[in-house]
Amino acid sequence: MVWDAWGVAAGHQPLSAQIRGLLAQVFGISGEPVARRDENDVPLIPTTLTDAHRAGLATIVGDEHLTTADLDRLRHAGGKSTPDLLRRRANTPQDAPDAVVFPADHAQVIALLEYCAEHGVAVVPFGGGTSVVGGVDPVRGQFGTVIALDLRRLDTLTAVDPASGTATLGAGLTGPQAEELLGAHGLSLGHFPQSFEFASIGGFAATRSSGQASAGYGRFDDMVERLVIATPQGTLDLGRAPASAAGPDLRELFVGSEGTLGIITSVTVRVHPVPETVGYQAWSFPDFATGAAALRGVVQAGAAPTVMRLSDEAETGLNLARSADVGGNPVSGCLAITTFEGSRAHVAARSAEASALLAAAGGTALGETPARQWEHGRFAAPYMRDALLDVGVLCETLETATSWANLANLKVKVTGALMDALGAQGTPALVMCHISHTYPTGASLYFTVVAKQLDDPLAQWRIAKSAASDAMVAAGGTITHHHAVGADHRPWMGAEIGDLGVRVLRAVKRELDPTGVLNPGKLVP
Amino acid sequence: MVWDAWGVAAGHQPLSAQIRGLLAQVFGISGEPVARRDENDVPLIPTTLTDAHRAGLATIVGDEHLTTADLDRLRHAGGKSTPDLLRRRANTPQDAPDAVVFPADHAQVIALLEYCAEHGVAVVPFGGGTSVVGGVDPVRGQFGTVIALDLRRLDTLTAVDPASGTATLGAGLTGPQAEELLGAHGLSLGHFPQSFEFASIGGFAATRSSGQASAGYGRFDDMVERLVIATPQGTLDLGRAPASAAGPDLRELFVGSEGTLGIITSVTVRVHPVPETVGYQAWSFPDFATGAAALRGVVQAGAAPTVMRLSDEAETGLNLARSADVGGNPVSGCLAITTFEGSRAHVAARSAEASALLAAAGGTALGETPARQWEHGRFAAPYMRDALLDVGVLCETLETATSWANLANLKVKVTGALMDALGAQGTPALVMCHISHTYPTGASLYFTVVAKQLDDPLAQWRIAKSAASDAMVAAGGTITHHHAVGADHRPWMGAEIGDLGVRVLRAVKRELDPTGVLNPGKLVP
Repeated sequence: MVWDAWGVAAGHQPLSAQIRGLLAQVFGISGEPVARRDENDVPLIPTTLTDAHRAGLATIVGDEHLTTADLDRLRHAGGKSTPDLLRRRANTPQDAPDAVVFPADHAQVIALLEYCAEHGVAVVPFGGGTSVVGGVDPVRGQFGTVIALDLRRLDTLTAVDPASGTATLGAGLTGPQAEELLGAHGLSLGHFPQSFEFASIGGFAATRSSGQASAGYGRFDDMVERLVIATPQGTLDLGRAPASAAGPDLRELFVGSEGTLGIITSVTVRVHPVPETVGYQAWSFPDFATGAAALRGVVQAGAAPTVMRLSDEAETGLNLARSADVGGNPVSGCLAITTFEGSRAHVAARSAEASALLAAAGGTALGETPARQWEHGRFAAPYMRDALLDVGVLCETLETATSWANLANLKVKVTGALMDALGAQGTPALVMCHISHTYPTGASLYFTVVAKQLDDPLAQWRIAKSAASDAMVAAGGTITHHHAVGADHRPWMGAEIGDLGVRVLRAVKRELDPTGVLNPGKLVP
Repeated sequence: MVWDAWGVAAGHQPLSAQIRGLLAQVFGISGEPVARRDENDVPLIPTTLTDAHRAGLATIVGDEHLTTADLDRLRHAGGKSTPDLLRRRANTPQDAPDAVVFPADHAQVIALLEYCAEHGVAVVPFGGGTSVVGGVDPVRGQFGTVIALDLRRLDTLTAVDPASGTATLGAGLTGPQAEELLGAHGLSLGHFPQSFEFASIGGFAATRSSGQASAGYGRFDDMVERLVIATPQGTLDLGRAPASAAGPDLRELFVGSEGTLGIITSVTVRVHPVPETVGYQAWSFPDFATGAAALRGVVQAGAAPTVMRLSDEAETGLNLARSADVGGNPVSGCLAITTFEGSRAHVAARSAEASALLAAAGGTALGETPARQWEHGRFAAPYMRDALLDVGVLCETLETATSWANLANLKVKVTGALMDALGAQGTPALVMCHISHTYPTGASLYFTVVAKQLDDPLAQWRIAKSAASDAMVAAGGTITHHHAVGADHRPWMGAEIGDLGVRVLRAVKRELDPTGVLNPGKLVP
């Protein structure tokens, strides 16, 4: 990925005339993009890696798989939140890990962790680098040195079991790499978060990722059958059966552990045959409440599509619900997208059942096109954020989840907190929202916030983010539904799991990482 | 429950003439039941509860909610495995907890745990007492005294959220009590393990119970939204949303913790409206492999019924698959049962989709009757075990799970281990098996073993159980799919989660139960 923005250079497009017109009208922003720094001209805080450390680490991975070059360090300097990108675009020296190592396999990861634990070197596991919560920030903690442990060489499909529908994937495989390897066997994982194109299998597991097809294939945590984890104390190999009553499910301690308890090196996942067919159907609802109730009815009836999403009035009206079609004719009310994957018989049966429920609940069928457009553009939104940042617009997303009964309340409270916090700074915000993940008992809420940048947009956003997070906790939501905790949500973890829950996490960390070298400053309060 | 057998006295029936004939033919057993001891005549090891302990505990729960009466102690002397029942029927003094306490609420449970931790009194949490793995054995561990902490007074439905489909249940509610309270709101939990009539909500959570409708409503662990847990270090309240990426899912440490890490006092569960209708369809398959492949096809297509089970040839032939119809006309090949619950539209759609797949995979539809008969008799099997024990027949069940690809291998290995271990003792066994829980990636196997009792049936069974457990581990199965670990499976927990996994469990236990008073001798190796 490019160092100061999302994705690859070719993905970046200037804003359309429609968007620029809208920005001028709403925010009084002219829309001329500022120039960005060339990565070769970025001053970097010098590496603190000693020659002894370099020699010790190189003995494990080989000289050619350790680098302290500035460009390599810069590409591992953190994730892709709006604050990350704002920091990189500020004209200041950049912090970065003191070295990047590229182990070849699980045994080398174990050896690296043992070395780092013994020699007091902090370790940040690095997959796709797509964290939007500071999860891969190069924090040194109590140590003088931090390395990024990049897992990209763990990139093989080591086992396939088509009958059981499972596959064992190296943690460093990206989403597309994994799909390509599985596709050769006629299989698919079906995990498509917005970060899909760059994020890694290990990262999906370590952050409890949730993909856009979660209604059909489950969250990534649902897909995990077995994990192999490297820790400074040795190896964990967890998950012997599709289901078990053999005590606590220890996999669930490491799914979501964000590199603080160990490094996931291999993940056995549930896969399925590449679907025979895909059905598409878009819907319009008169308002968000009606649409949410309709989605609830479908998922509670056990009739969930593969993808099911609902944009609120603001998101629908601003057409950001259809990122491939910005500037097109807006859908009235609230737009919902459904897709159905599987055999022709399954798609026909499930689509008929779900569509009948959505229609009965007040939905108006809009045909296939808006759903196909959504699918076509579904990974593009982060590129638009970059274009907005370039013209002085603040744009960021945040997300939560709660019960169906509390959903409207939570939406109002978080929206209000964001609008109040930004409005009070003289920058009134547009706040859009959608439901992207549904469960029988509740749903997620995903917010997109847009406002004019102040001179210090980092401070500006920090105030808004803090207000939104406080509102989530106060209104009974979770601090994160699928972005994970990282550094940014850590202050709210105590409220999430309680003091005794924090003690349990710390006890596990003490046992596996007694010197505390694993991803300091993340997750564990 | 009666002290030395399953269930209530009224449930016990003498063996039918057909069964007695079969036993005479196969095992040479005449079939005359032995008389059982009256519980008033059973010598009990005297209580070790000191007057100081009695006073301390009574201060918390009140005098009337603490008992050291022999009959009360006897009713809390352990679970309902075949070894448990054989021990109780042996003419020996019985061990039992030194007292039984009945706290009124979470605060009293916390106070009891604090008292016991401080004064060195072991605590066995007691729900329905239906454990078949020694999970509620009155083990004193390093302490001189053990109490049973009976949760039956935590028996209220404290919250209902019909829109979200959740309800908060006291841990002491039995299955029927919970269904009755929910039924008043038009809701149902849909968790029907064989222990349903007696087991408790807290026990379901603490043991990762799985009910017969797991294909439709999930395992009990899937149903848990939120847990409140009392520990000697205070309270945990876990689960803020239907799904979250806020770190490890700590609920999953306590689901399956079997009273060793804390005592679950309240469970918020996913519920659903009482189904509008139920559809029944039984099937015959020519052999187990064909039937298993058919079930696999259905669950992998996302078309699972509410209940889906398959008996092997032996179970089908011996008619134990239809416990309400023992002695009736046997079904040829392998009997499968499906039921479908929900709205009429959902039942019609799902039933059509699943039935088409089962028929295409080689199934012959047998109509509704065998499925209704199965449902009618589905909680009765443990009563028949008692009748068999009474006439000198050894009868026990055990269970495991594995991937679809490994299912046939695991079945052969466990069956072989049981037949070899019992055959070598001169008591050839009948071993029957069924699949009762299916997942996209695999299934459970539930074995029923019948043989003639030797003079020391406890030793006889110990050899067979140990051989079966070793075979499970060697063949890649889990040591338990839904019976839990307790004392009986504890020797195999190291193989299940590895040495480092054991260290993680112990670290959590040290943090929450530093003096080790919680359910000694269970789960944690």
